[in-house]
Amino acid sequence: MPRPSTRIATLTGEGDDGWGIFYKARAMKAAGREVLELTIGEHDIGTAPDILTEMHRAAMAGHTGYAAVPGIAPLRDAVAGRLSAQHGVTYGRENILIVPGAQAGLFAAHHAACDEGDPALLIDPHYTTYPGTIRAVGARPVPVAARSEDGFQPDLAAIERAAPGARSILINSPNNPTGAVYSEASLMGIARIAEAQDLWVISDEVYDTQVWTGRHIPFAGLPGMAARTLTVGSLSKSHAMTGSRLGWVAGPEAVIARLITLATHTTYGVPGYIQEAGLYALRQGAAREAEIAAPFRRRRDGLAARLSGQNVLRMIPSEGAMYTMLDIRATGLSGEGFAERLLEETGVAVMPGESFGKAAAGHLRIALTLPDPLFEEAIDRLVGFALGL
Amino acid sequence: MPRPSTRIATLTGEGDDGWGIFYKARAMKAAGREVLELTIGEHDIGTAPDILTEMHRAAMAGHTGYAAVPGIAPLRDAVAGRLSAQHGVTYGRENILIVPGAQAGLFAAHHAACDEGDPALLIDPHYTTYPGTIRAVGARPVPVAARSEDGFQPDLAAIERAAPGARSILINSPNNPTGAVYSEASLMGIARIAEAQDLWVISDEVYDTQVWTGRHIPFAGLPGMAARTLTVGSLSKSHAMTGSRLGWVAGPEAVIARLITLATHTTYGVPGYIQEAGLYALRQGAAREAEIAAPFRRRRDGLAARLSGQNVLRMIPSEGAMYTMLDIRATGLSGEGFAERLLEETGVAVMPGESFGKAAAGHLRIALTLPDPLFEEAIDRLVGFALGL
Repeated sequence: MPRPSTRIATLTGEGDDGWGIFYKARAMKAAGREVLELTIGEHDIGTAPDILTEMHRAAMAGHTGYAAVPGIAPLRDAVAGRLSAQHGVTYGRENILIVPGAQAGLFAAHHAACDEGDPALLIDPHYTTYPGTIRAVGARPVPVAARSEDGFQPDLAAIERAAPGARSILINSPNNPTGAVYSEASLMGIARIAEAQDLWVISDEVYDTQVWTGRHIPFAGLPGMAARTLTVGSLSKSHAMTGSRLGWVAGPEAVIARLITLATHTTYGVPGYIQEAGLYALRQGAAREAEIAAPFRRRRDGLAARLSGQNVLRMIPSEGAMYTMLDIRATGLSGEGFAERLLEETGVAVMPGESFGKAAAGHLRIALTLPDPLFEEAIDRLVGFALGL
Repeated sequence: MPRPSTRIATLTGEGDDGWGIFYKARAMKAAGREVLELTIGEHDIGTAPDILTEMHRAAMAGHTGYAAVPGIAPLRDAVAGRLSAQHGVTYGRENILIVPGAQAGLFAAHHAACDEGDPALLIDPHYTTYPGTIRAVGARPVPVAARSEDGFQPDLAAIERAAPGARSILINSPNNPTGAVYSEASLMGIARIAEAQDLWVISDEVYDTQVWTGRHIPFAGLPGMAARTLTVGSLSKSHAMTGSRLGWVAGPEAVIARLITLATHTTYGVPGYIQEAGLYALRQGAAREAEIAAPFRRRRDGLAARLSGQNVLRMIPSEGAMYTMLDIRATGLSGEGFAERLLEETGVAVMPGESFGKAAAGHLRIALTLPDPLFEEAIDRLVGFALGL
């Protein structure tokens, strides 16, 4: 076998891909063991039948050939309308590229921003794939630590030190894995640095319908920022359509035109019947989205109540997204050590903070994604395990 | 707006993206004009209702969450079984990555083979996206001309001259745009060069069910070649599932493992319900595939008959794939000039050879993709136009 490219061989950096506990939990389940998974950001409900029925209608009506690479016009228009209202910025369809999921959008956005070897900033802790996505375009991920003590708000002074020479900064609010919703002060600070250093801001806003306290501030809506922001969104979290791989990148027309060319050469469009289903889903309005988000808020509140009256597990107040972080440093275990033992001894799978970067060491990410009774059972086991250490 | 990456800004090289006539034809149609399109490789039938019904069944049964990134196990197994039988090589699921369409497979395969600046060979004429796909991974496309006079079989001497220092060679048989099916001598010659220069061979075999004369020889089945070949396939052409974006990359386990990691960071899997539909489609067997291929053979034969008795338009004997090339050099027009005037004066859209590289200048690519009566009408207009010049 010839040597693979250095870029693909070093995609996950020094370590593994961060999904070890997840794979182990899945293997245990496959072997017949009962496992309560609080690992990935997947709803405990599937995609709603009416959305799937619309998909089938579109397919049977003949929408099975190549769809236009930028996305079908009515969906691009609907996304443009949605973001215009959210951001207070006027978008047209020429500002929108439909992509096969937000992960593809993050990859494409970094491809547009960075050349080989360019430094690309991200906030640590971060979603597992971020550094590899940056390496996949040949750029160099530069994590900037946010502190547990600050509720994982970004550290502006640290960003300012890291920014000179970088081409982009990747932000994510509401945040996976921390549950932080970035404050106006945080975002304005990032805007100031982005302007001073001429950075692209790649803003992953896939959790924008899941805000429990405060409000979501779309980055592109900040003064002057629309011209340097690539907003990545999707229907995965807002409409429980994770498996359908339907998302978008929104940005200045000139760069979206480049991204359409990239899409022609890397994915060649998204199934038309999935786009029709997405259009239908968006048209269901805000009540549907609130209904899909409600269980996560409820479980988060239940978790907070369950953790009162002890001080081994400290909950980082989760402001949004379908996760919350627990600081377990008082146990003396690493996140990985805790998660390994928890899985083996109780059958509860959680993601160690270390999967999300150095700044989340000594923490666990809890996905709020089991039905309430199972969620409560899993948390009972977790708390029992921690207090029994 | 910050400067976009140089890589994305130069993706299509010096020229346009090659789809000018296609866009113009679509715009004319949108404006209400009747246009007979012989441009893209899309069947005149949609995806069969039974395949779509199976897709809907899988979706309604709850297969709407994240599917395993490498692909669902039964589909990987089915593709492994199909290729094992075709190639005479033993594949297991660990040799197969399911991707969202062959275009994504071609991108991923080049990502695995080439680093920034590496020369990557391809045969000219070529499918429009090939050079841009190579540039999208930062590599440098090196086209090696095949000659119309050789029926567009690859020129082994030219490949041998170009190969030193290259990392990969991209081949495509049955070939788009030329309709050539590479001979055993051609493929064995490429194998010899690949071995001598330690090249990856990226073999795009999406037209493997469309062979009109001779037989399809899968490259990975040649002695010793499985270890250096990444075979890209899909259900788009074989099962009229173009819009569903379902394909695969097959290769050595060690590189497929790398490609799975890449997929985690660039696409994060393919919709599970589409994979279930693909599995069902593959299980329909060879008769279904022959039925889908039959109209192209019929139209090719009709075209050959229609062109007898004149010598302005010379048909390159099409051996496979849903296209045939016409040599129009006797008209004195370029492919682009001919196609532009043909569209404007007769409402027939064909792709100029120049869209597919320098070696196809003075040719037209005819997609055999209109229902027979419309196809015959389009060809009548084309022949009438050419003879009236």
